[in-house]
Formats: sequence, structure tokens, C-alpha cells
Amino acid sequence: MKYDNYDVAVLGCGPAGLSAAINARVRNKKVLVIGADLCSPPLHKAQKIENYLGLPGLTGGELLNRFMDHFEMMEIERTTVKASGIMEEPDGFTVLLGEEVLHARSIVIATGIPYKSTLPREEEMLGKGLGYCATCDGPLYRDKDVLLVGHSDEAEAEARFMAEICRKVYYLPLYKGSWLDDERIQIINERPVEIIGQDFVEGLKVKDGQVYNIDGLFILGGETAPDRLIPGLLIEDKHIKVNRQQETNIPGVFAAGDCTGGPYQVAKSVGEGQVAGLGAARFASRQA
Amino acid sequence: MKYDNYDVAVLGCGPAGLSAAINARVRNKKVLVIGADLCSPPLHKAQKIENYLGLPGLTGGELLNRFMDHFEMMEIERTTVKASGIMEEPDGFTVLLGEEVLHARSIVIATGIPYKSTLPREEEMLGKGLGYCATCDGPLYRDKDVLLVGHSDEAEAEARFMAEICRKVYYLPLYKGSWLDDERIQIINERPVEIIGQDFVEGLKVKDGQVYNIDGLFILGGETAPDRLIPGLLIEDKHIKVNRQQETNIPGVFAAGDCTGGPYQVAKSVGEGQVAGLGAARFASRQA
Repeated sequence: MKYDNYDVAVLGCGPAGLSAAINARVRNKKVLVIGADLCSPPLHKAQKIENYLGLPGLTGGELLNRFMDHFEMMEIERTTVKASGIMEEPDGFTVLLGEEVLHARSIVIATGIPYKSTLPREEEMLGKGLGYCATCDGPLYRDKDVLLVGHSDEAEAEARFMAEICRKVYYLPLYKGSWLDDERIQIINERPVEIIGQDFVEGLKVKDGQVYNIDGLFILGGETAPDRLIPGLLIEDKHIKVNRQQETNIPGVFAAGDCTGGPYQVAKSVGEGQVAGLGAARFASRQA
Repeated sequence: MKYDNYDVAVLGCGPAGLSAAINARVRNKKVLVIGADLCSPPLHKAQKIENYLGLPGLTGGELLNRFMDHFEMMEIERTTVKASGIMEEPDGFTVLLGEEVLHARSIVIATGIPYKSTLPREEEMLGKGLGYCATCDGPLYRDKDVLLVGHSDEAEAEARFMAEICRKVYYLPLYKGSWLDDERIQIINERPVEIIGQDFVEGLKVKDGQVYNIDGLFILGGETAPDRLIPGLLIEDKHIKVNRQQETNIPGVFAAGDCTGGPYQVAKSVGEGQVAGLGAARFASRQA
């Protein structure tokens, strides 16, 4: 897939993201939705939704199907490749999408319930021996000992890469299934509980009490917190700070749905998605 | 109809009001919706709504029917009697509803696109010879000359009442149809354009240039602006000021939909209605 320039890039394909996308599309904008295979796992799991006006009595899955049908009717582009970074440019934003780079005039963030840390003190230790991209920071750990926590099997490739340059590589998978089988890599089948080290990462303690002494710790394949995705984005009480126009502190970046705060409810997300989508469309028009 | 005590009283039955009502009902609250016979005339007139997620391609009327079906399923009480005033009490609010008085622990205002004045300088002249309730202020104009502007035939009873105590009564209907036929009352079939008088109402000028000299002017049966309905309610740029929790400046009073600002769109109203309805339900629980 080759990516073009877009008026509006929407991150997330839950109720807020889909609503933002159709609203920008109705304003005749070129829209890309960047979202996982399964849009909104929390909605998908909901037993019954009684309070989305006009569509009572559906299961979460049925309601999501109605949303997807509407979305597909609008012929909006969609990708399941994960965005790894967004940079402000004079005329909009550059979005890193796997190996590709695309340009969007405005952004809507609708990434759902805020990122939860994998470990206590994660934020505090970021850049002090803790990272979220092994291939980026790998060279710093040449001939040293590292531990990689993997949220999904996508992280295994990074473990193999690190095994080529590091002295010792531990891999702690947080998912079920079969894990990589590589004699250079030691698998740790335990829950991680505590980062050891004050000024710099020195080890990781797991649930059975054992401490693995390391020089570097990577947490991979988890959600990317929005303020790591877009540097400078203002967070307040763990949610993206927005005003009633769903504008964030960065001009051209809008946010909607659970990532902006509670109540975590469908109609609230759809409504905010609409306001964000219309706002992003208007912003894109001014940039054109 | 005899009115009881309610947890939540919702003013307005457009998308925001209905959404607020079903959300408070889902929280097991006793809810009353106060709304006109036809809910949301602007939505009713909309040709096609493409951007309410999950229900594409319906006319405004069809979408409103879907909303009403959902609302009726929830078995929520409803009245078409117009609220004429709301007063704060230590344990909630007193709502004046025609001849009846009811009590509600919390209020959701969802009265739609803001009230437009009938005449320039209307706000400025309020209480200076201009009023919105002839039966209330009538005695002040005994043996004087008054002009009543009627937005609907409900105003005709007030004109007849004034004819009993005033010297001269003019009646200017702003609606089509047949008007009252009363020899004591002079009908003016013209558009009102200007209030004459600086410190006090002295006359009303109509479109053909004629000026009717009067001591009092009444504008009847139009919408009641929310801040006249609830004294002290903060308005900003013609809209009710709310925060992201849809709270107004008065604790226990929430607002949602077009009355809180643009964009005037269905999903935005439904989403805000949800947040307001859940907030009002929570407030009512704390009062219980």
C-alpha cells in the first residue's frame, strides 16, 4: 500500500474514530483511518447497549457492526498498520506508518481508554534504561544485557535483532501461544512486577521474587500513549486535554472519545467524534 | 395530570433531551421529559442525515421516529405543558408547569437552538414596559394602553384578560390562521419592527411605518430563553455555558445540545445528552 496525502488522518476505529471519519468525509475530505483489525475491543465485548439513541437493545458486537457498515458505505480508506510517530510540519503533519510516511493536514486522535503502564515507575524511568523501541535504541546496548517485555508476537523480531548485538537477551512474553525459539534468547515465563534501579535501570523483578540484572529494559507492542506519539501533546489526569471543540493544545490535532475522559460511553464518543471530525475538516480546508 | 417528584426533569425532547432522558432512565432514575408536541422541528425538516453513526441515509423525520421509538420503549413520563419557571430549592428544583408545580432533584436543559429575540432592544427594555407574561404584570397596566405580540394562539387568552382591565388593547399575531374576534381588541396585521422609547416603552413601530403609542408591550408564547427560565444561569455568546461534563454554573443544572453551542448536529447533541443525563442521574443520587 502506498500512502498519499490526506486532509484528515484519524487514529483509532472505535465509535469516536469512525464518527470523526464519516463526518470529515461528509465534508468532502480525503480521510485515512488508522486502526487495529478489531475496532474497539471494549465495545465488542459489551453485552447489551441500551443508551445509544435510536439503536436500542443491540449487543456491543452488533452495534459495532452497524457502525462498520455505515463506515464502509462511505468508502473511506483504512489501514491496520500502526502509527509509530507523528511530527508537526509547517503545512500539517507527517505520520510514520510502518515503513511508509504519509502527510495529513489535520489529525484526530481517538485511541480509546488511556494507555496503562505495564510496570510501576515506567514513566519515570523512560530514557533511563527503559525504552519502547529496541531497534531504535539497540546500538546503545551493544555487548550489554537487556530484557524485552513483549505484549504481542510482533515484539519477537526485535528480540532477535537485539540477540545479534547484545551480550545477553531475556524475553518476557505477556501473551499466550508459542514464543520464539532462539538459543541466544532466554524466555522468562513470569509476570514482571518491579523495575530495580534509581537513576538508571539495573534490573527487573518478577512475581516469583527473582531479579534479572540488566542494563536495558524494553516494553514492546503495547499501546503507544498519545503524548509519546505526538510530542508536546498535553495530557491532564491521564486524558488528552481538549476544549469543547475537541481541540488539543496543538493546532490541527483534535481528540475524541475515551482518550479525552469519561464517561466511557458510546454516544459520548460518537458525538465527540463528530465535533472533532468537523473541526479537522475545517482546519484542513484552511490549510489547503 | 398530577405531577410527582422526579429525580431528573429534562427540558426539551430533541436528540439531546431524549438522549439525556434514556441515559438517566438506564441509571434507574425517575425522569420527566417536558417537550413540545413535535420534538425538534429543525431535525424534522432535515432532508437527509448522513453523519449519525450507525443510522445512515434516513430523513430527519425518519431518524426522529427512531429516536422516539427508543424513548417510548423506555417508558419515561412526558408532558407537553410548557415549563414557565424553575427555582432552586435546598433539595433540588421547583418547576412551574402550567397550573402545576413539581419537584426535581436535577435538571437537564436541552431546549435547542438559542432563543431569538422578536424585536431589537428586547432585552434592554425588559421590565421597562416590556414583559413576557401579561397575566403576571397586567395589574400594572390597569386603564392604560398595551400591545400584545402573540407567537401562537395561546396568547389570545392573555389578550382577552388584558381587555378587561386596560383602556386599549392591541393584538399583533405572528402566526397564520384565524385570530381572536373581540370588539375590545384591535388586531394589527403587520410585522413589528421597533420599540419606541428610551427609558420606558412608549410605542411600537410596525413595518408600514405606523407607530402605536402604548404604555406596555408583551411578547407572548415565544420560546423562553433558558436564563429567564432559570434565573442566574450563565450564558456566553448566546449559549448556555457548560464544561465538558455538561455542567452549567448552577449545581444540579446540566445542559446539552444546540443550546450549549455549535456545531448544531445530531450526534453532538446525542453525545452531550448522554453526558448530561448521566451527570444529572449522579447528582440526583447524591441528593437522595
